Amino acid sequence: MPEESNSRELDRLIFFSDAVFAIVMTLLVLDIRVPDVAAREVPGVVFELWPKIFSYVLSFLVIGLYWIGHHQTFRYVRSYDRTLLWLNLLFLLSISFIPFPTDLLGEYGELRFAVIFYAASLALARLLLALVWWYVFSGPIRTSDELDRGLANFHLLRSLAIPAIFVLSIGIAFFSPNAAIASWVLLVVADTMAWRLWRKRSSVRG
Amino acid sequence: MPEESNSRELDRLIFFSDAVFAIVMTLLVLDIRVPDVAAREVPGVVFELWPKIFSYVLSFLVIGLYWIGHHQTFRYVRSYDRTLLWLNLLFLLSISFIPFPTDLLGEYGELRFAVIFYAASLALARLLLALVWWYVFSGPIRTSDELDRGLANFHLLRSLAIPAIFVLSIGIAFFSPNAAIASWVLLVVADTMAWRLWRKRSSVRG
Amino acid sequence: MPEESNSRELDRLIFFSDAVFAIVMTLLVLDIRVPDVAAREVPGVVFELWPKIFSYVLSFLVIGLYWIGHHQTFRYVRSYDRTLLWLNLLFLLSISFIPFPTDLLGEYGELRFAVIFYAASLALARLLLALVWWYVFSGPIRTSDELDRGLANFHLLRSLAIPAIFVLSIGIAFFSPNAAIASWVLLVVADTMAWRLWRKRSSVRG
Amino acid sequence: MPEESNSRELDRLIFFSDAVFAIVMTLLVLDIRVPDVAAREVPGVVFELWPKIFSYVLSFLVIGLYWIGHHQTFRYVRSYDRTLLWLNLLFLLSISFIPFPTDLLGEYGELRFAVIFYAASLALARLLLALVWWYVFSGPIRTSDELDRGLANFHLLRSLAIPAIFVLSIGIAFFSPNAAIASWVLLVVADTMAWRLWRKRSSVRG
Repeated sequence: MPEESNSRELDRLIFFSDAVFAIVMTLLVLDIRVPDVAAREVPGVVFELWPKIFSYVLSFLVIGLYWIGHHQTFRYVRSYDRTLLWLNLLFLLSISFIPFPTDLLGEYGELRFAVIFYAASLALARLLLALVWWYVFSGPIRTSDELDRGLANFHLLRSLAIPAIFVLSIGIAFFSPNAAIASWVLLVVADTMAWRLWRKRSSVRG
Repeated sequence: MPEESNSRELDRLIFFSDAVFAIVMTLLVLDIRVPDVAAREVPGVVFELWPKIFSYVLSFLVIGLYWIGHHQTFRYVRSYDRTLLWLNLLFLLSISFIPFPTDLLGEYGELRFAVIFYAASLALARLLLALVWWYVFSGPIRTSDELDRGLANFHLLRSLAIPAIFVLSIGIAFFSPNAAIASWVLLVVADTMAWRLWRKRSSVRG
Repeated sequence: MPEESNSRELDRLIFFSDAVFAIVMTLLVLDIRVPDVAAREVPGVVFELWPKIFSYVLSFLVIGLYWIGHHQTFRYVRSYDRTLLWLNLLFLLSISFIPFPTDLLGEYGELRFAVIFYAASLALARLLLALVWWYVFSGPIRTSDELDRGLANFHLLRSLAIPAIFVLSIGIAFFSPNAAIASWVLLVVADTMAWRLWRKRSSVRG
Repeated sequence: MPEESNSRELDRLIFFSDAVFAIVMTLLVLDIRVPDVAAREVPGVVFELWPKIFSYVLSFLVIGLYWIGHHQTFRYVRSYDRTLLWLNLLFLLSISFIPFPTDLLGEYGELRFAVIFYAASLALARLLLALVWWYVFSGPIRTSDELDRGLANFHLLRSLAIPAIFVLSIGIAFFSPNAAIASWVLLVVADTMAWRLWRKRSSVRG
């Protein structure tokens, strides 16, 4: 059957995804530019760049979180088909888009619109990754024996925690953009807690 | 014979191609910039960027289609020679050029010239990939046993569907640039249909 | 145990890091731009770009040094966990930041602030790599049998030589920014000496 | 002996080099920008960009040639040491620099200075690759059994053909920059002839 994939081709798919992740994460810094000012104004101007540095660090870490999620998804994958290729491409499209909302947030971080646009873009990317995961465990993809339905559902639930927080923060942004940004700290808390729960469950099972 | 290639070197060729694909697809977003405007004008200005976002998404998906085509070509390749190296480089040159017509289309999408330039650039890239495929199955390249002449011809025919649509759209653009852009939706339809035909044929054969 | 990693996933982590290194090192040159001047002024203008070329070459070589350090760290690594993933991501974040201080140094190299900012950024990156190393040999990571505690401590000591020189140069910069830049030549000397010591020790041991 | 390298680490070195090649080749197109003009002037303005397109295509192909050369060098390499790491990094530094002379040539191609600067930069890169090759076959590096001294010398001679033509073209540029550019066509001729000679010699030997 021609659609059956061998190991080299699956490696190629994963490698390609990693390259997109690496490029996006590295391009983010290009939006932080040193403006052309008089020498004595340079320190002040650099410190005023902090909202751009903040949005760059934030996006780097969130994409890093997504990369780890992608990592954890594909560790169970043993074959692929055309649908998985395209779902993965759509996810990568949403990742490659992130420099734009990041730039917007760095430039207009006090603006409700920028905060909502950023939250929506990053929630969308995570939802597409959840879709990839859902397809991996419920579709015709061959997966590693380690993956049972309980684990799969747990992962799916967990992968919805991050978009849920982003969507929640859109609501918060209507009252206060800054509070919305602050709420994103929950992302790390939520992910770490889900992780600990998973490990606990695994060791119980194991 | 020195020209004979081992597996590591073939991997290197494929890896290099994937890196070029990933970089081009990720660079496309850099043309979408947040302009420097008053805070209250930001939402309007971002929505006016939609032609640039459209051309970015379009090019991302078309290059994704070409990446899958490259993928399907090299899954049958078991050796390479200098000619294949150069044909592949020429194809990658045409891929690396795509950010330029994409930017042109995003900036001047209502212009016949931009539409034709875009269609011609993307048709050329696909034709070069068809040339790579033709060389793989008719040249001195060793291929996998799965590849018989019937399959090879079928693939060649299929790989010409996309440039044919692009060339057709150049004709349409003389009447209406927008109609030409709309006709590109056929790309996905054509590719999916060819795919289904191929799978049908394969299962008949298998 | 789900946290246990197989070889493919460790390869993915290393590959991803290498891609970030390669992209950062290659992006550095983009800050060197040909200005729009009259033809007869071009040679003079290009030669006046030397501070930018200097800072580009310097950052390329220092990041190259860090890449070799990363290389030497991961040659002993046989497994990974979530902590190592995140420590490595933090290190890569600091690497991806380097184009910004490099640009600052190239533009305002005579300025104490730019020199200190550059030295601090590069010292921080090297300290994070030292932290990765420390975690690798003292944490739950499985390492190659070649790695004993003596070697591990030696490496840790050595990896602190470079940040020490950068921190020292911050002190020097308060007197003379140029002297601080000149002191960075010691980086290469220090690293080469540490290397020779290590080889000597290894051959004694071996 | 710690300096001894295993296959994974050598792969990492080669992969890293390929990533730098791919990024540089793909970044070249970013210098070709669509200017902001009235719609009816767009076609004329795009055609006036041909010197930039020419210099982009030229650099892409020359770097492609160097990539093939790097490919042919490392196919014989079975180990590496610190010196090889650094020589390779210096070579990659010269490759990563190429976007700058390419931009200069595209902007001021009629200028003797731009032509000489371009020729010198590309000759330097090729000389550094020749140095890598020289170190591979004469240094402590373990090489494949296929590599005998006759073949090594032949390759070295051949690898000097390209810088020789670039250096020659610097002389020509003092009379006519255009003639110097035209002389670069010899690069392809020289390389192809050297290649045919090599194959002939190989088949005689084999």
